[in-house]
Amino acid sequence: MALKSWIASANDPDTDFPLANLPYGVFRHAHSTRIGVAIGNEVVDLRACATEGLLESLPSDLVDACAAGVLNALMALGHNAWSGLRKRITELLSSEAGEDTQNRLASTLVPMREVAMQLPAQIGDYTDFYASIHHATRVGKLFRPDNPLLPNYKYVPIGYHGRASSIVVSGHEVRRPSGQTKPSQAAEPTFDPSRSLDYELEVGAFIGAGNSLGQPIPIAEAEQHIFGLCLVNDWSARDIQSWEYQPLGPFLAKNFATSISPWIVPMEALSPYRVAAAPRPDGDPDPLPYLASSSAKSAIDLTLEVHLQSKQMREAGNPPRRVSHGNMRDLYWSIAQLVTHHASNGCNLRAGDLLATGTISGPDEGSEGCLLEMKNRAEPLRLPTGESRVFLEDGDQVTLRAFTQRDGLPRIGFGECTGTVIPAL
Amino acid sequence: MALKSWIASANDPDTDFPLANLPYGVFRHAHSTRIGVAIGNEVVDLRACATEGLLESLPSDLVDACAAGVLNALMALGHNAWSGLRKRITELLSSEAGEDTQNRLASTLVPMREVAMQLPAQIGDYTDFYASIHHATRVGKLFRPDNPLLPNYKYVPIGYHGRASSIVVSGHEVRRPSGQTKPSQAAEPTFDPSRSLDYELEVGAFIGAGNSLGQPIPIAEAEQHIFGLCLVNDWSARDIQSWEYQPLGPFLAKNFATSISPWIVPMEALSPYRVAAAPRPDGDPDPLPYLASSSAKSAIDLTLEVHLQSKQMREAGNPPRRVSHGNMRDLYWSIAQLVTHHASNGCNLRAGDLLATGTISGPDEGSEGCLLEMKNRAEPLRLPTGESRVFLEDGDQVTLRAFTQRDGLPRIGFGECTGTVIPAL
Repeated sequence: MALKSWIASANDPDTDFPLANLPYGVFRHAHSTRIGVAIGNEVVDLRACATEGLLESLPSDLVDACAAGVLNALMALGHNAWSGLRKRITELLSSEAGEDTQNRLASTLVPMREVAMQLPAQIGDYTDFYASIHHATRVGKLFRPDNPLLPNYKYVPIGYHGRASSIVVSGHEVRRPSGQTKPSQAAEPTFDPSRSLDYELEVGAFIGAGNSLGQPIPIAEAEQHIFGLCLVNDWSARDIQSWEYQPLGPFLAKNFATSISPWIVPMEALSPYRVAAAPRPDGDPDPLPYLASSSAKSAIDLTLEVHLQSKQMREAGNPPRRVSHGNMRDLYWSIAQLVTHHASNGCNLRAGDLLATGTISGPDEGSEGCLLEMKNRAEPLRLPTGESRVFLEDGDQVTLRAFTQRDGLPRIGFGECTGTVIPAL
Repeated sequence: MALKSWIASANDPDTDFPLANLPYGVFRHAHSTRIGVAIGNEVVDLRACATEGLLESLPSDLVDACAAGVLNALMALGHNAWSGLRKRITELLSSEAGEDTQNRLASTLVPMREVAMQLPAQIGDYTDFYASIHHATRVGKLFRPDNPLLPNYKYVPIGYHGRASSIVVSGHEVRRPSGQTKPSQAAEPTFDPSRSLDYELEVGAFIGAGNSLGQPIPIAEAEQHIFGLCLVNDWSARDIQSWEYQPLGPFLAKNFATSISPWIVPMEALSPYRVAAAPRPDGDPDPLPYLASSSAKSAIDLTLEVHLQSKQMREAGNPPRRVSHGNMRDLYWSIAQLVTHHASNGCNLRAGDLLATGTISGPDEGSEGCLLEMKNRAEPLRLPTGESRVFLEDGDQVTLRAFTQRDGLPRIGFGECTGTVIPAL
């Protein structure tokens, strides 16, 4: 039986934020920006907890980090510090907490509906991977029907650098970008609003303690460097991408906006939901030794969903429609492998850096993590209003969700990552 | 006749840092990190100038920015502020300055040989372009002899995101990276130290005042967003690059280290050395309207050099040997075009962001900006010790230099960007 909280909304079986989750975020409330922990429908103000003396059993650098306005200092303290803090917050919120503790803690709570969530960290560098073989295969088929996967895919966790400046928190509107596009029949490119705007369903890993420049991170230690996970929507303009991406990769097709969910779910909260990765298909090479993990549970059983609501649907009172449904365990490369590969040449990762998996798709129809992949379907995506979608239209709202569940354990959710497309300038 | 300084070393015709230059940097001296301006063999400590009351004619936010430990705040203030500060520093250092001013300013000087230069700014995002058509053509020929340039090159200023965390200042050693490589005849890749380590000679532009997310930067305003220029060595592991780069571009082949020169030369200092860009060859398309500049002098007449000194040369007392000699005016895309293209989809640039041109090469043998391009030569590069180089060896020291010169105007230099290769772990 899972531990209960004295905060009633945390015990609701449908909440994303039970006592077993305790994700970190940064919120704005009453003209002040603070670190918070989500619990049911409430947010624990960590700076207020420190002021109230509720964290006095913890080391002073940890308490200072809790009182900051971004998570970077807490991230940098490393996994032992995170574990100690998590243990203390669990005590404070558990139904076994004494009445005095409950009263003091209650004074630090802010209702979630009253806070404006901010970016959780100052993101130094953002890296996006391509870790779903189902995504890579489906997209590759559009360009190379007979040979969808490039020869490096099963050896190299392919990744590239994204843009940190244009990462926005869930709720931020996303302006349709303009750019150069060239339809294959056109003689010359033109500069116009993108006609092929897409979402990409991804999971992001925030780096905690980093590594020094020149020092790789062994695969066995990789997860200790991960502070926690969030959802990422790597908005993409496919028509800009197909014209610009050779030979140096996607650039303006991606860097106009990337949305992330505001709550970072700690790796420790996810540990009961770890599973073995799907075995590599027969004939696939083993990972090279530096990427070979001895972990029996390198994957995470995390259900991922994309919900879409058009402007017409909103006006007609239609709720968002789920258009995709996949699972993070279907990734070809684990997040530990992404971290180790990233640092394998000595590249230094820093607290607050964001590594995203790339679009996560499953093998079956219905599990495509972006609209581009649905081009392989016989029928285009239909919405309840009778509209269809090949790519996103102005006014479309895209919402990513994720949760994990297991018999005898509470459901843990990621909250949502949402964004609405607004017209080009 | 150029204005003289009362600091004798600034009037040396060979100095990189005459009164007409006044580049900004960040230095460490006596346990403190400050913004400095290079003048001859001296560094003006701007915080000390502020304390000494020498900047009191300037707005207080500008004085505060001068007293900071990185240049970001000064960069963010915009070109009018930079111009005002430059005018004041010129007055203080000019031979026309009064004796009292000279005495007070003298108390803020630190000999350049005593300072340890630091990164000049907190670099939020680093973008690397591919703006030299001679580089793109020579490299393209190695892969596609009949069709070296991809169809997008003459329309799109090709660029990609680099890694900000691993940017180091000149003088930092560079460890040879390890990574996956796969020679074409091998069945499988292996993980080993790179055997094809290269330098890339580039110019970097630091962004000053940025743009808001969603707001493009018109080409006519692009240069107002540039604080100044430095040298960039984008170290590259060619064997890692050729195996990993498809389809998302270079990643671990580049992000193990990027070296920059410590002094940022203001755009205003370079204005007398502006020239018309070389006309586009007959038959090349005009830039699309958003990239069409009406500036008569969109290029910069900046001589660029690469000097190489092997360990054996150092031990034999051989000075570094110049192995490349080119000019920034040979770029196909101007830095204004790079800025405008980058923001054309609404991507937000921030004060302290670094945009590099990509390897700058000229049309002729001897002007190759990296070793890879020299593969097209009949003979490999020879060093005075009898050694030859296809790629860099451990112990090699690479130094980039740049300067501009014109009749009746002083020579302005960039200082140097140097780094020595140390063995793989």
